[in-house]
Formats: sequence, structure tokens, C-alpha cells
Amino acid sequence: MQTKTVHAAGELGLIRWIARSVDKNGRKKKSIVGIGDDCAVVPIGKRLCLLTVDALIDGIHFSQRWSSPEEIGRKAIEVNVSDIVAKGGYPVYALVSLIIPPTFPLKKFQGIYRGIVSAAKARDVEIVGGNLSRGRQLIIDISLVGFVGRKNVRLRSDAKPGDLIMVTGNLGDAAAGLELLRKNTPGFAPLKSKYLKPTSSGGKVKGFIRYIHAMEDISDGLAAEAMHICEQSKVGAVLYPKKVPLSPGLRKASRLLRKDPLSFALFGGDDYELVFTIPSSALPRVKGFVVGQITRKPGIFLSGGNISRPLRKHGFEHF
Amino acid sequence: MQTKTVHAAGELGLIRWIARSVDKNGRKKKSIVGIGDDCAVVPIGKRLCLLTVDALIDGIHFSQRWSSPEEIGRKAIEVNVSDIVAKGGYPVYALVSLIIPPTFPLKKFQGIYRGIVSAAKARDVEIVGGNLSRGRQLIIDISLVGFVGRKNVRLRSDAKPGDLIMVTGNLGDAAAGLELLRKNTPGFAPLKSKYLKPTSSGGKVKGFIRYIHAMEDISDGLAAEAMHICEQSKVGAVLYPKKVPLSPGLRKASRLLRKDPLSFALFGGDDYELVFTIPSSALPRVKGFVVGQITRKPGIFLSGGNISRPLRKHGFEHF
Repeated sequence: MQTKTVHAAGELGLIRWIARSVDKNGRKKKSIVGIGDDCAVVPIGKRLCLLTVDALIDGIHFSQRWSSPEEIGRKAIEVNVSDIVAKGGYPVYALVSLIIPPTFPLKKFQGIYRGIVSAAKARDVEIVGGNLSRGRQLIIDISLVGFVGRKNVRLRSDAKPGDLIMVTGNLGDAAAGLELLRKNTPGFAPLKSKYLKPTSSGGKVKGFIRYIHAMEDISDGLAAEAMHICEQSKVGAVLYPKKVPLSPGLRKASRLLRKDPLSFALFGGDDYELVFTIPSSALPRVKGFVVGQITRKPGIFLSGGNISRPLRKHGFEHF
Repeated sequence: MQTKTVHAAGELGLIRWIARSVDKNGRKKKSIVGIGDDCAVVPIGKRLCLLTVDALIDGIHFSQRWSSPEEIGRKAIEVNVSDIVAKGGYPVYALVSLIIPPTFPLKKFQGIYRGIVSAAKARDVEIVGGNLSRGRQLIIDISLVGFVGRKNVRLRSDAKPGDLIMVTGNLGDAAAGLELLRKNTPGFAPLKSKYLKPTSSGGKVKGFIRYIHAMEDISDGLAAEAMHICEQSKVGAVLYPKKVPLSPGLRKASRLLRKDPLSFALFGGDDYELVFTIPSSALPRVKGFVVGQITRKPGIFLSGGNISRPLRKHGFEHF
């Protein structure tokens, strides 16, 4: 008899199970938003505090084969910063928990820490504490504390039917970059760099955040993030595949890799662009690319003009 | 040529190196206390916020051979709560980062989470977010956010020459309990339980916290914690080995294990009692056990009456 494992149960299901356990816990919640968004949003006095944690694990979220220690350290900060700016906030304090194998070279460790410190400095984040342990695998687990004004906080749950769905930049580059690195393909430096040196995109929405309803960072592909927004906002969406911004480099790499560039954009990870929704009337005042629209009807559909097909979790059919 | 490894460099040295790197970073610090205490202390509006992170790693901080999943989950919360109460504060929010091996049984995972949720509930902590990743080893990495009134905050750095050094309860039980578990020795339930089910000791100092100067939780043995206080407060200390409170169970187990019970108390871990210093005039109003005194002269000495010997890092000579 096979034992039921965490892997088999699926991560999303587990996270839901956790959320239910916590809810059952029955205590009065102090948080405004708990599990289910990029960050927790908790009131502290008159302010709102954002709390998030993200772990980078060797062999899963990065590989020492192609990422330098500095790049690994930088990425660990940026992916967390991305969660904070996706809620309209700014990061302030970091706790850095490092798990290091017993024989890990000191030079590499120093490189990782240099990356963490320099990314934190660039984002005006103060590293206030941490923890160092030995373990079988290199893990960088960072918790970030940020703030957001009550007027600026943007959640996954605030999309309204009729809203336009927009993204801040090209999608799919990072996922294609990773595949090129894996296959040891020369060239395509911008795609590889998008994967190796992700940067959070908070600056791109600063000028018009007041028009944004729902927002989220794109860490797992546009399809997954659109699903999050639809689930949390209890709405549906139509995505326009032909409107998804794809770089010329991605198109070229996709031909070489014999894949559809759109599959990288919809189902690839690590872009760290932002996806957000706005009322259509705000479009003239907003920068970015319209990639779809929120619908009252639940479910996510890909629309190629006259035909529309339901989005499936791990793939799509061409029009 | 041997590569210099993190392990070889030593954890304390590394943490200092990290702290230096962060300092060099040159930005104006917002924190009141950063790296070097149980928690970071950061001002948020008129309040002080406490931030801490601690990882429990399978095979290092616990073993699935003798800890039940619930016990592992509970311990992960308690060791973090202990850091918060050691600063005079109370915990409020938790971020739970779990790393789970691909074939980890779902039942065990649920047990761990049940432990986390029930300990959090008991401590009035809300789990507001988290992260779930696959990895080679079970790791529970918890970040806690707490608060403390400005008058109540107690740091490692506030010990004064002449202060009495006190502890809240028996020391060494948990370390002896672990050794008994390792050797598969039957009996000694209270000692094993102290290791398997640690509880933070904040309640024990609540009534007289206003008299306390410096405070810290005892996670790594009295010797290590006394060194932390002395380093951070730039003072020295004399410890009275004969005054360290030892349980009858520990004395009995130590005879069986052919060890000195005091070595468990001074150099063993996982007690989660508190060590604190008070001006000697406050003694009548304070509960606990006097185990030493703070001195102007740096260094830590063990005093057996007329003779006094310097404390060494990993052992001591009998008087």
C-alpha cells in the first residue's frame, strides 16, 4: 500500500488545508489578510504592516551550476521584495535564515551574503536578524516586513467584473532563460539574465497605483496568477493570448527550443513582473499591456477573437 | 589543499562577519537592536516591534525517532515564543516556512501542522502566512512578530556590574533528557518531556519585570547565555556552580549516564528557562534562583567559594 505523501496531495491543496486548520483554530483574527495573498496584511497602530516569507532551495529555486553566489543572494531578497511591492507597499526589515551544508565553502557563503546585503541596500531594507543552521541542502529563507498606507494596499481579492487585466512587461523571458541554461545553449544573455537577476517591478506602477483594483506579482506564470486573482475576487477572466507581451528574444529562443513562446509566458515562472486590474476608464492614465478582462462568469478562458477556450492548468490549445 | 568551509569557520564567527557586513553597508539604521540579541527590536510608530526567526532542522534540532509530529510543530512555535518573551514582549503574528521531503507522509505533515496551530493558539499567536517548499530534509522555519512596551523591553546589553544573575528554573533537564532518548534509556519521563515539549518561560518573570536589567532565554546552556550577556553588556561575571538549580531527576540520570549534572546545566541546550540580572536590592521582590553576579572585570569565572576558575567554552574543572 502506498503511503499518501505531501507531494501527492499537491501544494495548493495543502495550503488550503493549512488555511482551514488555521481558521478552525477559532480565534479572533487581528490580520486584515492572512494566508491566500502575496503577503499578510496586519494592522499595527494606524499603519498596515506587510509580512512575507519565501525560501530559495538549492536544486529547486536555483542551481549553483549557473547562478553565482551573489546572484542567489540577490534573488532571495528580490523575490520577497516583489511580494511586498505587489501589495502596493515598501519593504523595511528583513530576517535572514540560512541553512548551509557542513562542507559549504566559506567563499561561496560570503558571496551569497554579499548578494543579500547589496540587494537589501539597493531596496533600502535593513537586515535586522537571522539564523544560521547546518543542513543537507543550501536554503535561503527570508522574511520581510514592509509597510503600506491604507489607501495604497492592493490585494488579490479586489478585481471587479469589467476590469482590464494588465501586466507591467514582457512575460516568459525568465522561464525560457532557465531552459536555455539547462540545455547549455550559448547566447540569449537578456533572457538568462531575467532568470538569474530578477528585479521586482514596484517602480513600474508607482505613478498610477490609485487606479489599480487587484494586484499580484508574476512568479509562477500569468495563468496561475490570473487564477489566484479570480479565486480570491470570486470572478472569472478572459485572457487575450495575442496581446501578451513577448520579447523578440523569447520568440527567437522559442523557435530554437521548439516551444510556443506563449507557454513560457502563461506557465513559466520567475518573471517578477506585476499583473493588475483597472477599470477600463482608467486606461489612458495607466502604463502597461492589456492582456485580458475580468468577467462576472467564473472560470478563465483564452480568447482568440471569435473562439474562446477554457484555460487548462498545464497547457493550452492553439487557435 | 583543504577548502575553507562554513563549518570550519564556526558559526559565531560567521554571525559576527555577517553583522560587520551589514554595518559596513553604511545606511542609517532604523532598528534599536539588530543582530546580536534574541530578537530584533524595531520602532513602529510609538510601539516597539520584536522580530525573530528560528529554524528546526530534522536530525539537528529534533529527531523523528523520538519526537512525534505534534511535538515537533509545538517546539517550533515555543522556541520562537521564548525569544520574544525573553525581551519582555508578547508574540502576535507568525510566518511558517516549511520544507518537506518529496515522500513525506501526509499524516505526519498534518501532525506537525496540528502542533504548530495548537501551540500558536495557546500563545495567542495568529499564523498569517507561510511558504511550503520541497527539500531534502524536513525543516520548520518560523518567523515571529511580537510587541513590547518601551518600558518593558529587556536586552542582553543592559547588565550592570554588581547585578545578581538569576534563572527561572532547573537547568540541564532537557539536555539530559535528550541523552537518555539517544541511549534509549527507559524512565525519566520529566527530563525527556522537558526536551520534547519545551515551554517558554515568559510567565515566570511577569510580576517583577520592572526590576530586571538584562534578560535572555537559555537555549544553549547557562555558560553560552552568560557569555552573550557579558559580551553585549561589556561586563564580566562570576557564576556559582553550587547554586545552579538542578532537579533530583537530573542528578539521578547523571549518575546513570556517568556525567556531572552541572555539565548539562552549563553546556546543554533546550532548557528555555530565562536568565536575567537584577540589582541586588531588588532580590526580595524577585522569584528565581541566584546563580552568579555581574562584575566590572571582563571574563566569566566559576567560583567555588575561595577558589575561582575561568569558564572554558566546552567544559569545566571540579573544585
